[in-house]
Amino acid sequence: MFSSIKRLLIGRPLKSHELGEQKLNKTKALAILSSDALSSVAYGPEQILIVLFTISSAAFWYSIPIAVGILILLTALILSYRQIIYAYPHGGGAYVVSKSNLGENAGLIAGGSLLVDYILTVAVSVSSGTDAITSAFPALHGYNVEIAITFVIFITILNLRGVTESASVLSYPVYLFVLALFILIAVGIYKIVTGGVSPQLHTPIGTPVAGISLFILLRAFASGSSALTGVEAISNAIPNFKDPAPKNAAKTLMAMGALLAILFSGIVFLAYYYGISPSEKVTVVSQIAEDTFGRNFIYFFIQGTTALILVLAANTGYSAFPLLAVNLAKDKFIPRMFLIRGDRLGYSNGIIILGIASILLIIAFHATTEHLIPLYAIGVFLPFTLSQSGMMVKWLREKPKGWVPKFIANTTGAAISFTVTFIFLITKFSQVWPILIFLPIIVYLFHRIRKHYKAVGDQLSLKTCESPVTIKGNVMIVPVAGMTHVVENTLNYVKSLSPDQIIAVYVAFDREAEKQFEEKWKTWQPDVRLVTLYSYYRSIINPLRKFVDIVEHKASEGNYRVTVVIPQFIPKKGWHNFLHNQSSLLIRTFLLYRRNVVVATVPYHLKK
Amino acid sequence: MFSSIKRLLIGRPLKSHELGEQKLNKTKALAILSSDALSSVAYGPEQILIVLFTISSAAFWYSIPIAVGILILLTALILSYRQIIYAYPHGGGAYVVSKSNLGENAGLIAGGSLLVDYILTVAVSVSSGTDAITSAFPALHGYNVEIAITFVIFITILNLRGVTESASVLSYPVYLFVLALFILIAVGIYKIVTGGVSPQLHTPIGTPVAGISLFILLRAFASGSSALTGVEAISNAIPNFKDPAPKNAAKTLMAMGALLAILFSGIVFLAYYYGISPSEKVTVVSQIAEDTFGRNFIYFFIQGTTALILVLAANTGYSAFPLLAVNLAKDKFIPRMFLIRGDRLGYSNGIIILGIASILLIIAFHATTEHLIPLYAIGVFLPFTLSQSGMMVKWLREKPKGWVPKFIANTTGAAISFTVTFIFLITKFSQVWPILIFLPIIVYLFHRIRKHYKAVGDQLSLKTCESPVTIKGNVMIVPVAGMTHVVENTLNYVKSLSPDQIIAVYVAFDREAEKQFEEKWKTWQPDVRLVTLYSYYRSIINPLRKFVDIVEHKASEGNYRVTVVIPQFIPKKGWHNFLHNQSSLLIRTFLLYRRNVVVATVPYHLKK
Repeated sequence: MFSSIKRLLIGRPLKSHELGEQKLNKTKALAILSSDALSSVAYGPEQILIVLFTISSAAFWYSIPIAVGILILLTALILSYRQIIYAYPHGGGAYVVSKSNLGENAGLIAGGSLLVDYILTVAVSVSSGTDAITSAFPALHGYNVEIAITFVIFITILNLRGVTESASVLSYPVYLFVLALFILIAVGIYKIVTGGVSPQLHTPIGTPVAGISLFILLRAFASGSSALTGVEAISNAIPNFKDPAPKNAAKTLMAMGALLAILFSGIVFLAYYYGISPSEKVTVVSQIAEDTFGRNFIYFFIQGTTALILVLAANTGYSAFPLLAVNLAKDKFIPRMFLIRGDRLGYSNGIIILGIASILLIIAFHATTEHLIPLYAIGVFLPFTLSQSGMMVKWLREKPKGWVPKFIANTTGAAISFTVTFIFLITKFSQVWPILIFLPIIVYLFHRIRKHYKAVGDQLSLKTCESPVTIKGNVMIVPVAGMTHVVENTLNYVKSLSPDQIIAVYVAFDREAEKQFEEKWKTWQPDVRLVTLYSYYRSIINPLRKFVDIVEHKASEGNYRVTVVIPQFIPKKGWHNFLHNQSSLLIRTFLLYRRNVVVATVPYHLKK
Repeated sequence: MFSSIKRLLIGRPLKSHELGEQKLNKTKALAILSSDALSSVAYGPEQILIVLFTISSAAFWYSIPIAVGILILLTALILSYRQIIYAYPHGGGAYVVSKSNLGENAGLIAGGSLLVDYILTVAVSVSSGTDAITSAFPALHGYNVEIAITFVIFITILNLRGVTESASVLSYPVYLFVLALFILIAVGIYKIVTGGVSPQLHTPIGTPVAGISLFILLRAFASGSSALTGVEAISNAIPNFKDPAPKNAAKTLMAMGALLAILFSGIVFLAYYYGISPSEKVTVVSQIAEDTFGRNFIYFFIQGTTALILVLAANTGYSAFPLLAVNLAKDKFIPRMFLIRGDRLGYSNGIIILGIASILLIIAFHATTEHLIPLYAIGVFLPFTLSQSGMMVKWLREKPKGWVPKFIANTTGAAISFTVTFIFLITKFSQVWPILIFLPIIVYLFHRIRKHYKAVGDQLSLKTCESPVTIKGNVMIVPVAGMTHVVENTLNYVKSLSPDQIIAVYVAFDREAEKQFEEKWKTWQPDVRLVTLYSYYRSIINPLRKFVDIVEHKASEGNYRVTVVIPQFIPKKGWHNFLHNQSSLLIRTFLLYRRNVVVATVPYHLKK
């Protein structure tokens, strides 16, 4: 039944060679790879206003200079990622760039924070998408967590099916979103120019504001820079581009940067001019749209495409997380299971774990975008900083022709990213401290895991010359619970192997039963030696374990191998197992993991 | 670590012969066996008032005639249980009495409804005990569920330790509770007689009340009869009494009846005279105590002993449920695991399941006593009716000397119990309907389970003459994942058994690896035949399963037995298992449960 539900949800399994490599042209790549970055304008500008609002709504004019700062940051990032694209044409994720230039630990810090970050990408995007929906339909307020979780489950299933096949479909919402925001910005500016909006709604730029401080401004700047999350996506995905891949990728990156700049400035400007205050129940974009159009078709079109692109942005987490996990697993820093392709050729384990982790985050943070963002942003800017620094080191080390401008671009990127990371740490310490605890733990775990894999590999490898012990003979122990067909079947099997010795073991709970059993046994199986053990504590395992220990000790002296052969009847239906004590399973697990004996189970299948 | 926590909570394991039989004298028996019955006065009278309150507080005077009716019911029940004590000196639970006189299904209905009922005993008593506490400390309101669950966990642990050793301690709270209520009733009546209570607080008996109906009165009567739950406890526990057991038990029963009658009438009378209205936040007993004494030491003494006796009453569920489960398991109606005595000689499985089930009920009903009581009461009165009817049949069938008065006593008991059950069904249908659904399901499950056990027994029994197949030889299949020490170790073992054929099987995911593996194998293990399987769908299990099927099919034609020998390395630490694909476990489970092959696991213990 489980497997038919699985078929229904994720489709029939695919053969390995069905893994098609679909190359993207620029238009499609722009759509697919930039949903994360572009969708950030749905929450980025709002974060600036939320910080400024803690002073007063008179401080809102500061959002304009802050936005200028963020645009400069954006330019620097785009230029420096352009360098990465050309330098790492096979995909230059922060993990790869940091590892190869700054060393293993820097790579692991980048990798660890990105792993966490992709989970946050999903949580933030879905929560923010949910905000767009509940802004449009206030009746849905209070169900944010449920709606967000439903989205995550939906995206997870979609990814388990494999999304690539429907990738063309995924590009429409992105262009619709860009179109929707273009209409919004254009109409908004038209209204402002034609005097349709009262200039009284906002305080003019330059108005002195009581209580404003550099601290607050930096905080607002850092919060607003969350609008830049996702710009690294293109540089990770260069191999997916049509040839010449690096050139196409670079062009796409520039186009995305331009779009992001326009949308971000447009939203910030309209929010400022309209004098919009952030509200818990209605997003800033929703307020702008409502003030511009009223609650008509275009309003719902804007909200709908916003929600859609945010859900798509979550989807980028689903392509990035499993791929990064594969890279880390190949280097043996995380469990090997992340390397396995599922029925539909996606890395199912990574997809499922990402889904579960982001649902847990959504529950923990009650799907509140504002509280998730600081952690998210620091998790983005830390790898930004590391990969740009890695590029600096690369240029300094290799000094290729014309390296100086490249070096300057990456240095600027590194410096600004570092500054933003630092500002986050200082101004939002109460929200970002967990990363200071989790990152070292994650890096430590990475090392521990690799150490273990290395130790296992060494021990298994035939190159280590551990001379195998020659086995001189076999002793077989059969634990018996009664005189039944199950035991008979097992004894017949053991006899057919003709080991050097067969010992049947019976654990008795009272003396009377012990005697009776011994007598009956003599007539039933006179040729098999029976040992009865008396159990004071009604446990079967303990006396058996002690007995096996003794036999094993003696046997190993003469290079004999001990096999415990367990008779087990298999009921016809699964639920029947619940009605029988699972002693044989317990015995097996216990002996196998703690003792050096072979454990064999002889099934006796019941017919009804 | 788990086992040391277990030791700390429930103590060291006990040997089987440490199971002491502690016989009870009358005083101690009265205390231990009547806590359930006596504690019912903490919620019984309140249930009458809650029903009458739906009309108006003027209807409260009806509680007096209703109480008289309940006292008559109590007398009839006590007299008829007296008969059961003499007729079933080995303990006459409703299950035994109904089964032996009315047939199996009647017994199963009684048994099933009692199983559910003991869970409700725990839930109701603990919820009501929590009410007593939150009445005294209003600040604790809103934490009812948490407090109740803590109590259940506490009692569960106590019972897993084994309560008998501390049984003497358990008798104090009961006597303290009786003392507390005696003081309350005596002082209350003294105040009334000396005119300390205004006679204006209540409407005189006989005042006409608008809207009163027979339906409401019957409903109030049925609700109030919940005060009689627990009177059957003594008749189940006769073997625990000192000799002459039946006589002592009968005397104890009468004493309990008398105490219950006094406490019940006293509470009902005071509640009526004080004109107390039921309230969600303060229990009726708490109100009476506060009106009589104010919130002084005696008030807290009364509330404290009430809470204590209610928790003790929950404890009676813990002695009765596992014993009934043992009886049902002996007759093979429920899983065998209920027969196993745990480390401390208690029937741990029954105790744990009771604890979990009552916690679920408490959560589902938000620890609201009032909503739990109808289900509880019908679950009590149904087995009451069945066991009394069983006694009627017994007398009619056996007709011993002087059977007529006994028959009359049981007939009265049966008639009244039936009437109460019927009234519950009619007047509280909206609350008790689940029992009409669950009982048939439970009885059906009982039969299904027994049928399965019987089928298994038949198939295992050596009496059935299924001639065992002689095994002519052995084929051993070794799934290999690489060329390592683990595989080497396994192959050495298999060779030492010298079966007729050894086949190593390798599942390849790509053609290149397949070829390479085959070539290397030839030089490494030239004497072991290697079969490589190509897996299109990246699954190891499926190709392996198909291969095993083919081999097994061929082998069985020649009466050969197939053994799959799985090489498995065992990491040094438990958490390491998480880092390795558990393919061997999967293969084992799959083959063992679905195919007729022996599965052996050869461990290779890693040293670091």
